[in-house]
Amino acid sequence: MNIETGKDARMKPFEPLIAVTMGDPAGIGPEIALKALAPSPSPFACRLFIIGDCAILQRAQAGISLSPPLHVIDSIEAWMPERINVMDMKINSVRQCAIGKAQAACGRAAYAYIVKAIELAQSGVIDAIVTGPINKDALKMAGIPYPGHTEILADKTGARDFSMMFACENVYVVHVTTHVSLKKALSMITRERVLAHTRLLNNALRDFGIAAPRIAVAGLNPHAGENGLFGDEEIIHIAPAVEQAKKEGIDASGPYPPDTVFMSAFKGRFDGVVSMLHDHGFVALKTRDFDGGVNITVGLPIIRTSVGHGTAFDIAGKGAASEKSMAAAIHAAVRMVNNRRAQKK
Amino acid sequence: MNIETGKDARMKPFEPLIAVTMGDPAGIGPEIALKALAPSPSPFACRLFIIGDCAILQRAQAGISLSPPLHVIDSIEAWMPERINVMDMKINSVRQCAIGKAQAACGRAAYAYIVKAIELAQSGVIDAIVTGPINKDALKMAGIPYPGHTEILADKTGARDFSMMFACENVYVVHVTTHVSLKKALSMITRERVLAHTRLLNNALRDFGIAAPRIAVAGLNPHAGENGLFGDEEIIHIAPAVEQAKKEGIDASGPYPPDTVFMSAFKGRFDGVVSMLHDHGFVALKTRDFDGGVNITVGLPIIRTSVGHGTAFDIAGKGAASEKSMAAAIHAAVRMVNNRRAQKK
Repeated sequence: MNIETGKDARMKPFEPLIAVTMGDPAGIGPEIALKALAPSPSPFACRLFIIGDCAILQRAQAGISLSPPLHVIDSIEAWMPERINVMDMKINSVRQCAIGKAQAACGRAAYAYIVKAIELAQSGVIDAIVTGPINKDALKMAGIPYPGHTEILADKTGARDFSMMFACENVYVVHVTTHVSLKKALSMITRERVLAHTRLLNNALRDFGIAAPRIAVAGLNPHAGENGLFGDEEIIHIAPAVEQAKKEGIDASGPYPPDTVFMSAFKGRFDGVVSMLHDHGFVALKTRDFDGGVNITVGLPIIRTSVGHGTAFDIAGKGAASEKSMAAAIHAAVRMVNNRRAQKK
Repeated sequence: MNIETGKDARMKPFEPLIAVTMGDPAGIGPEIALKALAPSPSPFACRLFIIGDCAILQRAQAGISLSPPLHVIDSIEAWMPERINVMDMKINSVRQCAIGKAQAACGRAAYAYIVKAIELAQSGVIDAIVTGPINKDALKMAGIPYPGHTEILADKTGARDFSMMFACENVYVVHVTTHVSLKKALSMITRERVLAHTRLLNNALRDFGIAAPRIAVAGLNPHAGENGLFGDEEIIHIAPAVEQAKKEGIDASGPYPPDTVFMSAFKGRFDGVVSMLHDHGFVALKTRDFDGGVNITVGLPIIRTSVGHGTAFDIAGKGAASEKSMAAAIHAAVRMVNNRRAQKK
C-alpha cells in the first residue's frame, strides 16, 4: 500500500498498519517513540511507523542506546522490519529547537504530524493512530486553535459524541467531568451526563471485545454520600442514571464509594468505572501505574490511542523517559483494530 | 504492672504495653485481633493484650486456624508470651450477638472496650491503644453520642487540636476535609485550615522520628488549577498557606496536581501529603494498599492508632479478613511509643 495513495499492496496475514505521531519535538515524544519501536523482534502484532522529523529523531537517538537505524519511507512497500520506519515531515523550523521548553515551531510541527496522521487514517491508508505527547502552551504559541489532541481529532473527523477513556491494566475509566474547576464540575454531575458516559463506556468496552461489560458507577461524595449524609448528588442524579442504564440492558451498578471502587475494579470485579471527577479516576490510575496508562478517544470514526502522560519537559533529552505508556497505547490500538475488523466480518 | 492499679512490675528492657480493642463484636475486629496476635514468635516489639470479650473471641477462634489459646489477665504480671492475652470485659449482652449486622448491644460493648482502653492509657498503665473497627450504626443504635473513635478519644482526653492521619507504606496523609459533602468541602478549603493541617502533619511526622519532614501540599482542582484556568482555590488559599508554612520553617511545597502527588510521595519524594479532599487521599491510599493502611489520631495526649478499614460486616465470621492493617497499626503504635520515649530522654 502506498502511504500517499492508499493503494493496497499488503501481504497476508493481516497486520494492522499504525502510525505513531512523534509529538512535540522538544518533549519526550521522540525518545519514547524510538524506545517503543526499537525492540527486535517487535512485541507488537502490527507494522509501525513514526510520523515526525528525522532530524529530531536522530538527535534523540544520540541520547539512548540500542536504537535500530532510521529508515525513511514514502510508501508502505518501502516499510522494513528491524528498522525504525519514519515518514519524514522535513519541518526545517524544528531542526534546531531547544529541548525541554514550549516553542511555537514545535507546536506547529506537532500539529502537522497529527493532521497528516488523521488524513492517512480517514483515507483508510492506516488502521490506527497512536499519538505522542504534545504541549498545550506550544500549540497556543503556534496559534493552533485547539487545546489538545481530542479536540483536533473530533473537529477534523466531525465527531460529535466523543470522550476520553483511560485504560490501565484491565480497567477502563471514563470521567463525567475533567478539565474544569471542582466548583464547575459539581454543577455538571447530572443524571443525563452520568447516563451518557455510562453508555459510552459500555459501547467502548464492547468495541474492545468485552461482550457484556461490568460497569461500576462511582459516587461523587465521600462514601458515595452515605445515604445523603454527605451530599445528595448520588440520590438525585447518579443512582437514577444507574437505574436507567440497567433498564437499557447495561450491566451497571453503583454508586460506589470513590475510594474503594477503583481497587475493586483492579481486583477484577468490574471492567470499567464511570468516575465523576478527574481526580477520582486519575488519582487511582496514576497511583496504580504512573507510567503505563493509555488514553483512548472513544466515539471517533477512526481509531486513536495515546500515551497517558505529557511532554515531560523536565526529563526531555535525558534518555530517562519510559516508553511503557507508548507501548501500552500501541497494544491497545492493535486490539481495537483487530476487534473492529472481526466485528465487520 | 497491675492493669487496674498501674503498679509497675515491668522488667527491663522496656517493651511497650499496648491494648488492642476488639472493636464491634459482630464485625471482623475479633478475627483480625486474633490473627494479628497469633504469630509466634511475635513480630511486634511490644506486649499486646486484647480488651474485649472472651466469649466472642472464642467464637471467632473456631473460624480460623492456628490461634494460640486465650489467656485471661487481670494484671500485667499474669501476661504471658505465646498466648492471646485478653482483658475480658464479660459483657453478657453480646455473647449471642448475630455476626455481620449492626446491633445496639454490640455498639455498647465496642464503646465500653474503648472507654476502658482510654482509662488505662490516661492513667499511664498502657503505652498506646490500637483500635479495632467499630460500626457507626451500632453506636447510634446504642445511643452512644459519638459518630466514631476520633470523637470519643478527643472528648475523653480533652483534646482540642486533633486530626486523623493516614499512613500507608512510607507516606503519611492528612485531609483538610473528610466526611462532608463535596459542596461543603469546597467552602472549607481556606488558607487557615490548609496551614493548620500542614503544621499538624509536620508535628506528627516529627513525632514519628522524621526530623525535617518533606511535606507536599496537594491542590484541590484538576492539575492544581493550571494557573487559575480550572479554579482559583490554589491561588487564593493553598499557595499562600504553603508560603506561610515555609516561613515557619516547615519544608512544605506545592500545591501539586492531586493525581500525581501521592505517587511522587510513594516514590520517596515526600514524607507526607496534605490532601484537600477525602477522595484524593483515600483513593490514592486504598489503590496503593487496600488492606494495609493505618489510621493515626494526631494531637491526642495519648497514643492511638487504628485499622484503616471498617467492620466489613459482609465478610465477618468467614475467616477471610486480613489482619494486615491491624498489624501495621500495632507497628505504628510501637514506633510512636518508642520515639516519644526517646524524645523525653
